[in-house]
Amino acid sequence: MKIIHTIKELREWRAGVSSVAFVPTMGNLHTGHLALVKQAKQEAENVVVSIFVNRLQFGQGEDFDKYPRTLEQDAAKLKEAGVAVVFAPDEAELYPHVSQDYQVEPPHLQNELCGVFRPGHFRGVATVVTKLFNIVQANVACFGKKDYQQLTIIQGMVADLNMPIKIVPVDTGRAEDGLALSSRNQYLSEAERAEAPRLYRVLTELANKVKSGDHDYVAHEQAARKELEVHGWVVDYVEIREASSLNVARVGDHDLVVLAAARLGSTRLIDNLEFAA
Amino acid sequence: MKIIHTIKELREWRAGVSSVAFVPTMGNLHTGHLALVKQAKQEAENVVVSIFVNRLQFGQGEDFDKYPRTLEQDAAKLKEAGVAVVFAPDEAELYPHVSQDYQVEPPHLQNELCGVFRPGHFRGVATVVTKLFNIVQANVACFGKKDYQQLTIIQGMVADLNMPIKIVPVDTGRAEDGLALSSRNQYLSEAERAEAPRLYRVLTELANKVKSGDHDYVAHEQAARKELEVHGWVVDYVEIREASSLNVARVGDHDLVVLAAARLGSTRLIDNLEFAA
Repeated sequence: MKIIHTIKELREWRAGVSSVAFVPTMGNLHTGHLALVKQAKQEAENVVVSIFVNRLQFGQGEDFDKYPRTLEQDAAKLKEAGVAVVFAPDEAELYPHVSQDYQVEPPHLQNELCGVFRPGHFRGVATVVTKLFNIVQANVACFGKKDYQQLTIIQGMVADLNMPIKIVPVDTGRAEDGLALSSRNQYLSEAERAEAPRLYRVLTELANKVKSGDHDYVAHEQAARKELEVHGWVVDYVEIREASSLNVARVGDHDLVVLAAARLGSTRLIDNLEFAA
Repeated sequence: MKIIHTIKELREWRAGVSSVAFVPTMGNLHTGHLALVKQAKQEAENVVVSIFVNRLQFGQGEDFDKYPRTLEQDAAKLKEAGVAVVFAPDEAELYPHVSQDYQVEPPHLQNELCGVFRPGHFRGVATVVTKLFNIVQANVACFGKKDYQQLTIIQGMVADLNMPIKIVPVDTGRAEDGLALSSRNQYLSEAERAEAPRLYRVLTELANKVKSGDHDYVAHEQAARKELEVHGWVVDYVEIREASSLNVARVGDHDLVVLAAARLGSTRLIDNLEFAA
């Protein structure tokens, strides 16, 4: 496995290989990331994993400086997983002028759901992913469904800007008690960790209500929110949306997804669940 | 020469050839475009010319509907010039949802010079060029210096978003009397056509004043504007800028360009001239 830090060296390596599957990450890898790598290995001969903590997608007051940088441990895991190249550029390599002057601007969806609470986040994601796609020139890229809104925006961007890459969604990895795997789980206290699986349980209950024929979506969203709040969560949102467009769900839509973001103490967790109405 | 109308067919053709040089156009081709093709032929084995009148870059009240569509004559010229593929998608092919939801957003330069008079124009250019780059996957693309601000924005976009393509600037083609070749010249009356070369003469005089050591840029800009106005032009701007960044020129800058846009009757002409201070 090669660890490459510069765009130039990555392009040189790329010119000598045939198919590439790409997994963009911010590092601090856990089992969920390794599931993306496993999928990527089935998609192409060579897997490239990028590790880059992207300042552009962090908002004011967010944890850019505190975000864990664990390149050595990450590289060991990726080597064992059979990755061909770890691309780990520093900030000056991707943002040589400090400012990123040209941005990829997603549509209004970027300002909904998580976008309400993280202004500019999805513009930052779309822009860095565009840069990484242009550098890696992969045939396929794998994204986790855990970040469902991010996945939807990347899929929309690729289609709308005719990017020559196939996006493969990968199911959310979960602990045995249902908690979605996330870098942020490590920040939970023992009591918070015990409480955390409620988020997924609440989404599952909501989906079951709809599947059993009760289409009062607003009531379900409010009940889910209240259920979390009484157990100490501060809820950003619980929303039922149409699964492929992420438009607000309407009765008659068949493929739905319920998405939620809520905080336990100072840790913000997100999760989602697809289901058929 | 192949004429290809769909993205799918273009991608299939692209997969079977090695190097490609690309010339994006809106059709209605003149000698200036053919100079771009000539340069492109020196850059790669295969030349692709796109012909697409891009609604996104036309403002309100601009001439999108009246823009001349002359595919048959254009194709004949391109065949003679040795082009491999003409890519002529219809609107539904490039904008299947009518709206373009993801945009490439250039920096403030998009709102200066021509951008003051054509709001949204350069966003539309950057976005369609990104789409075409992603479809054609050329190694090289040729752009004319006639549209100097456009060229600067495309160069900035390619660098800033790490697009895997080399941009080759091509000198402005001119009539014997100095008038820059442009699709719009055909709209000039005989009297306007006789007057039109003044634009380039005025830019040349301005450059000569600076080269002779007079660095009062604002005075030169105002004199040039007045010279045009007394001969019946309505001037949008005459501005001296730093040649590579298009920042406002400061004394001490070495590489300069003077850019102008002005109307004769209902026809808006642009031109520019690079020079060393």
